[in-house]
Amino acid sequence: MSKNISWHHSVVTREKRNAQNKHNSAVLWFTGLSGSGKSTLAHAVEEKLFEIGCQTVVLDGDNVRHGLCADLDFTIHDRTENIRRIGETAKLFVESGIITLTAFISPFSSDRDKVHQLLLPGDFLEIYCQCDLNSCEQRDVKGHYRRARAGEIKEFTGISSPYEAPKNPALVLHTDRDSIEDCVQSVMILLQQKSIIPAD
Amino acid sequence: MSKNISWHHSVVTREKRNAQNKHNSAVLWFTGLSGSGKSTLAHAVEEKLFEIGCQTVVLDGDNVRHGLCADLDFTIHDRTENIRRIGETAKLFVESGIITLTAFISPFSSDRDKVHQLLLPGDFLEIYCQCDLNSCEQRDVKGHYRRARAGEIKEFTGISSPYEAPKNPALVLHTDRDSIEDCVQSVMILLQQKSIIPAD
Repeated sequence: MSKNISWHHSVVTREKRNAQNKHNSAVLWFTGLSGSGKSTLAHAVEEKLFEIGCQTVVLDGDNVRHGLCADLDFTIHDRTENIRRIGETAKLFVESGIITLTAFISPFSSDRDKVHQLLLPGDFLEIYCQCDLNSCEQRDVKGHYRRARAGEIKEFTGISSPYEAPKNPALVLHTDRDSIEDCVQSVMILLQQKSIIPAD
Repeated sequence: MSKNISWHHSVVTREKRNAQNKHNSAVLWFTGLSGSGKSTLAHAVEEKLFEIGCQTVVLDGDNVRHGLCADLDFTIHDRTENIRRIGETAKLFVESGIITLTAFISPFSSDRDKVHQLLLPGDFLEIYCQCDLNSCEQRDVKGHYRRARAGEIKEFTGISSPYEAPKNPALVLHTDRDSIEDCVQSVMILLQQKSIIPAD
């Protein structure tokens, strides 16, 4: 074997994976305030994609914050590093042919832009879950807003830390106004328009 | 939508993914000295798996050290953190139904054991690429051994840092003796025995 070993690159290219899967891959980057519906929508879109036979993954607080990024907290430095690692992980998934849905507040434009630059043009679809702070706070499913108002959570986006809305997102979802079904449908249309999935 | 939003877990379970893909998922953890053929074998196995329609990913120095772990160097602390992140990333892939092949020296038993414990029983298949230090050093494809001997690379496994061989690997490949084809075949048989892929 000694003679044959060499610096080896994969012959299973992304193009071959996409052809075999019968769909392309991309990162669907859901961004918005806590409680704006990012994770719910990412999972609802994933379900729809799975039904038509697509390869998918959802990266969200549930599976990243307790694992890959368990060593990070919520300081600005660590939030930036959190998004960087998620971006790099998303890149690995996209190169493996997987439609990758990420659901993180990701409040800073500069962090999202870095992820965008990490990926090939067209691989990064920024999806802004636009939702009134009031609606998010009234909902407050996890009780985070209450705790942030009480000062128990520091640097909480929307309360004590800024959210920088995307300037030029691929899609805006009005999650305080439209139904989940309508939002999911909008994402599916976007994916067809971008030729990530075949038209109906 | 406000009424419908709730803490949402994926309905696309690993079991459903495996059923749709017609194969199970697991981590094939290739470990061994630099130059022992880990990455070459991981890619060769991936090629074989792709041919039979499997979903795969290879994680190796090429795609991890310049990305997810670009902030880490080769001190013992950073090598441990490197393997931790790779383990967590492998877990995300496995839960997404992907057969995940990792190719890292991963010299410390304790680091590999931590990855093992992170995963479900049966998800971690340790594959030891056993190869004489002499063979690896004579080959020296990347010139690392020469530089390590010259003191230009510190803490280089096998030269100035220990390699702890697996005590109970799922498979031992004698990469200094057997052909790539034979090694690949051994891995494919292992995957069939573990019911990761269907029997021929």
